[in-house]
Amino acid sequence: MEPILTAGRFLAVPAKNTFTAVDPSTGERLPEIYPVSNREQLARMAEAGKRAAAALRGVPAERLADFLERYAAAIEADADAIAQRASLETGLPYKPRLREVEMGRTLLQLRQAAAAAREKQWALPTVDAENDLRSGYFPLGGVVFVLGPSNFPLAFNGVAGGDFAAAIAAGNPVIAKAHPGYPGTTRLLAACAERALAQCPGLPAALVQMFYHCEPDDGLWLIGQREIAAVAFTGSKAGGLRIKEAADRAGKPAYLEMSSVNPVFVLPGAVAGKATRIVDDFVASSLLGAGQMCTNPGLVVLPSGVASEAIVAQVAARLRSTPPGVLLGEGGPRQLESAVQTLCGAGAQLVAGGQRVAGPAYRFDNTLLRVGAKQFLAQAEALQTEAFGATSLFILCDNDDEMVAVAEALHGNLTGCVYSAEGEQDEPLYGRIAPILCEKVGRLLNDKMPTGVTVSPAMNHGGPYPATGHPGFTAVGMPASLRRFAKLTCFDRVRSGRLPELLRGLPDTKSTPNTTRERV
Amino acid sequence: MEPILTAGRFLAVPAKNTFTAVDPSTGERLPEIYPVSNREQLARMAEAGKRAAAALRGVPAERLADFLERYAAAIEADADAIAQRASLETGLPYKPRLREVEMGRTLLQLRQAAAAAREKQWALPTVDAENDLRSGYFPLGGVVFVLGPSNFPLAFNGVAGGDFAAAIAAGNPVIAKAHPGYPGTTRLLAACAERALAQCPGLPAALVQMFYHCEPDDGLWLIGQREIAAVAFTGSKAGGLRIKEAADRAGKPAYLEMSSVNPVFVLPGAVAGKATRIVDDFVASSLLGAGQMCTNPGLVVLPSGVASEAIVAQVAARLRSTPPGVLLGEGGPRQLESAVQTLCGAGAQLVAGGQRVAGPAYRFDNTLLRVGAKQFLAQAEALQTEAFGATSLFILCDNDDEMVAVAEALHGNLTGCVYSAEGEQDEPLYGRIAPILCEKVGRLLNDKMPTGVTVSPAMNHGGPYPATGHPGFTAVGMPASLRRFAKLTCFDRVRSGRLPELLRGLPDTKSTPNTTRERV
Repeated sequence: MEPILTAGRFLAVPAKNTFTAVDPSTGERLPEIYPVSNREQLARMAEAGKRAAAALRGVPAERLADFLERYAAAIEADADAIAQRASLETGLPYKPRLREVEMGRTLLQLRQAAAAAREKQWALPTVDAENDLRSGYFPLGGVVFVLGPSNFPLAFNGVAGGDFAAAIAAGNPVIAKAHPGYPGTTRLLAACAERALAQCPGLPAALVQMFYHCEPDDGLWLIGQREIAAVAFTGSKAGGLRIKEAADRAGKPAYLEMSSVNPVFVLPGAVAGKATRIVDDFVASSLLGAGQMCTNPGLVVLPSGVASEAIVAQVAARLRSTPPGVLLGEGGPRQLESAVQTLCGAGAQLVAGGQRVAGPAYRFDNTLLRVGAKQFLAQAEALQTEAFGATSLFILCDNDDEMVAVAEALHGNLTGCVYSAEGEQDEPLYGRIAPILCEKVGRLLNDKMPTGVTVSPAMNHGGPYPATGHPGFTAVGMPASLRRFAKLTCFDRVRSGRLPELLRGLPDTKSTPNTTRERV
Repeated sequence: MEPILTAGRFLAVPAKNTFTAVDPSTGERLPEIYPVSNREQLARMAEAGKRAAAALRGVPAERLADFLERYAAAIEADADAIAQRASLETGLPYKPRLREVEMGRTLLQLRQAAAAAREKQWALPTVDAENDLRSGYFPLGGVVFVLGPSNFPLAFNGVAGGDFAAAIAAGNPVIAKAHPGYPGTTRLLAACAERALAQCPGLPAALVQMFYHCEPDDGLWLIGQREIAAVAFTGSKAGGLRIKEAADRAGKPAYLEMSSVNPVFVLPGAVAGKATRIVDDFVASSLLGAGQMCTNPGLVVLPSGVASEAIVAQVAARLRSTPPGVLLGEGGPRQLESAVQTLCGAGAQLVAGGQRVAGPAYRFDNTLLRVGAKQFLAQAEALQTEAFGATSLFILCDNDDEMVAVAEALHGNLTGCVYSAEGEQDEPLYGRIAPILCEKVGRLLNDKMPTGVTVSPAMNHGGPYPATGHPGFTAVGMPASLRRFAKLTCFDRVRSGRLPELLRGLPDTKSTPNTTRERV
C-alpha cells in the first residue's frame, strides 16, 4: 500500500478501500495499491494542518519562498521520472507535452510564486499614517484544501500546481488531494515536497500534506471542518457544484474552475479572408491534449453560407483523418458519449465522429456537430453542455442578429474569441458582439484560439459562473492568484513594534486628505 | 401612496400591501403610505437595470464620477431636510449624529467614490506587452442589488451609502431596497439621485432605482433573476444568511455584513494601569447610537480579580445612570430581550439592566452581563449571540490560558481590540492572544474601542464568516471596496483600437521576464 504524506512524513495507513491507477493506452491496471482515506485520517491531517497554520504566524515570507524554490529544484532533478509516470497514468505524451511544456510551466509557477512571496506587493500594503491605519492581505489562519483536475497531472496538481503554489506563497498550509487518475505522479511530487521541506528549517512539517483519494462525501465533510479555511478545485461542473455547496454552507471561500465551452465567433470578414488559418487554428486547438483542456474551443459561431460550409467540411475532414488521442481515463469516452447524446437530443447534427473507438485504449472519435442558430437559441441550455474532449459544436447563423443573440444566450465561460477581417469590414458587428461576450468571459481573444494559458501577471484564467464560482479571481497569473488565499486585515492604532513585517516602516500609500476621523 | 424610483422616474405603483414608517420616540405611525413592491414590479426594475448596464458599456468613468459628485451636491443642498426626516424615522439625534457626522460621511464616501472612478487605479490595470496580454477589473454587466441596514439611514443607505457609491463607481447600475424603517429618508435621497442624474447626459436613467420594501421571498427571488449580477447587504445574520443562500444557489457574489460581537481583551497590565480610561472608552463606545453599531463592543474579556470587579461595578453604575437611547424600531426591544434571554439561558448573569423600558418609545435598558471563562467556553456558541444595542457581556478569566482559550473560541468578527499596559509587562500575553484574534477579525485595534470606522483607503470593514460572507473584502475604504463589484477580464491579443480605455497606451506593468508562451 502506498503511503500518504501526513504531518511531515509518508505514512502507511490502514485502508478498508483501495484503488489502483490505470494505463489509459492499454486499459491495464498498474501494480501499486493506493488507500482511499477515511474521515479519521482526514481529520488528523486537518488538525496537523491547523497547527501548521499557527506555526506559520510570524514566519517570514522568505522562508516560504525558499521552500518553493527548493521544491522546484527537487522536481527538476526528478523531472524525467515524474513526467514518465504522468505519461503512463494519463496517456498524455511524454514529450513535448509533459516533460517539456507542462513541466516547464509547473517549475515556472512555483518560482513565480516564490518571487511573489518575496516581493510582497501581492498583499497590497496600504498605509494611512495620519489616522494610524494600515492594512494588507494576510494568511487565512487555516488550511487550504486543493483538489486538482484530471487533465494536468503536473501544472494543476493539488500538491505542485498553480493553486498549491499560490496558497503556500500566501502563507497557508495545504492539504492536497491527488486526482485518482494519477496517484503515482502525485506521490513522486509529494516526495519532492517532503525533501524540500526537510531542507527548510523553521517551517512546519505539515505545511504540505497529500492523500490520494476519499469517498466524495468524506471530502465534502472535510470542507466543513473548522481547520479548513478555503478550497481550490479544478474539475467537472458536477463535482465543483457539490464542493461549492459544502463550502457555501460552511461560509468558506471556494475557488472553482468548473466548465467552459469557450465560444469562438468567426465574423463574416474572417470567414471570407482567413478560412484556412481558422481551420488550422481550430483543429490544432481542438485536438490539443486530446481536447481535454479547460479552454478547448467547444463552440464555434459562424455566419451560414458557402464559405462557412467549406470551413465545416475542411474541419470535418481534418478531424476524421487525425487519429483520436488517448483519453485520460475510462470516464472519458463515457462522458463524451453522453455529451454527444445530449447535444444531438437538443437538435445538433453529427458531422464527423461521435463514437467510442474500439480497442483497449480509452479513445473517442474526434467529433464535429452542427446546429442552426434558431435551434441553438431554442435549446441554449442543453447545447452548452461541455464535451470534455475533441468534440465541438458549430453554430450557423443566418444573419448578424442571430450571432448577437447567440452571444446573449451564452453562460459564463473562461474565454471568448472573435476572429474578424483585418480591415474595418467587421468592426460594426465586432462592436455588437465583443461587449456582450466580454461580460461573459474571463479572457477575450482576437484572432486566436483559446488554448494556451500564458503564465503572466496579466493573465486571467477565471470567468463568470458557472465557469468558476466568482468573477473576480484568477487561477493563473501571479500575484493576483495569491489574493484568493488571504484575508484583508486592518491594523488600527496598533503599536509599531507589534505590526506585521509587511506593514512596518512604510510611508503613506498616498496622501489621503479626504479621510475622516468621524466616529460613526 | 409614495412613488418608487424606477427606470429613471418616480412612479406611483399599485400595491396590494402597504406600510408606514413609525416615529420610534413615540411609537406613532407617520402619515405617508409606502408600497410593498411585488415580483412584477421588481422584474421590471431588473430589466431596466440590465438595459442600463448595457448602455453603460464604453461610457467613460468620468461621467459616473460627475454623477456621484452632483449627487453629493444635491444631498448637501437638502441636507437639513434629509437629516430631519432620518431623525424622525430612526430616533437617532439630528445633531451631531445625523446632520453632521453621518451626513458628512455620506458625502465624503460619494466624493471618494467619484475620485476613485476618475483615478482608475482601483481596477488594477496590468500589462504584459511582450505577450500582448492586458487585464483589469471591469463592470459586472448586470445590476447590483443593495440592501441597507436599519442603523445608518444615510451612510449605509441602499441608495446613497458606501455599497451604493462603490457599485456605481465600479460602473454598475444599482437597484436599492430602502430599509423599511426609514422609507421617507430614502425617498428624499433618491429624489436627489434623480435630480443629479438628470444633469448628467449620456448616463442611462435606470442607473439608480429604488423601492421601499418587498416580501422577503420576493427579494430572494429577485436575487435569482439573471439581470442581477451581485448583492450587497448590511443587516442581521438571519437575513444575511438567507440572502447568502439565494446568491450562492444562483452563483452570484454576495457581500454581506452580518453580525459581530467585537471582542475587547483587557490584559492584566491595562486593568491595573488604565482602568478609568477603559471604563470611559467602553461606556462611550457601548452607548454610541444606542448601541446599534456593527462595531459595538459586545464582548469584553478581562482577568478576574479585584481590579476587574471595580471596572465591572463602574461600568454598571454608568450604564444604569445613563438614560437608554431610543431604538430604531419596534423590533429593537424585542430582539434585545430575546438576546438577553439567550445569554442568561447559557449561564450569563445580569449585572445591570436587562428589561424593556416602559412607555411609548422603543427603549431597552443599557445592559451589562457577566460570565466566567469556563462557562463561556462551555457555551461558546450561545454566548456569542449578538445583542444589537447597548448590551455587553463581560467574560472574567482566572488566568492567561483562559484568556487565550476564549480567543480561540471566538467566531469571525469585524473587529478585535486589545488594551494592554504601556510598558512591556503585557507583551507575552499580547503575543499569545493577538495572533489568534488577528485571524478572526477584519480589524485589530490597540488601546481603543471598535466603534469609529474611519473612511480611509487603509480601513477594513469586513472580517471572516459569519461577520461577513468572505474574508477578503471590505465594505468601507476605497478603492478596495469597488473591486467587490467588478469582474477580472484579460484581453489577449485584442487589437489596440478595441481595448477598453483603462488598458490603452499603458506601459508594461513591470518587466515580466518569467512569463511563458507555452501553450498548455
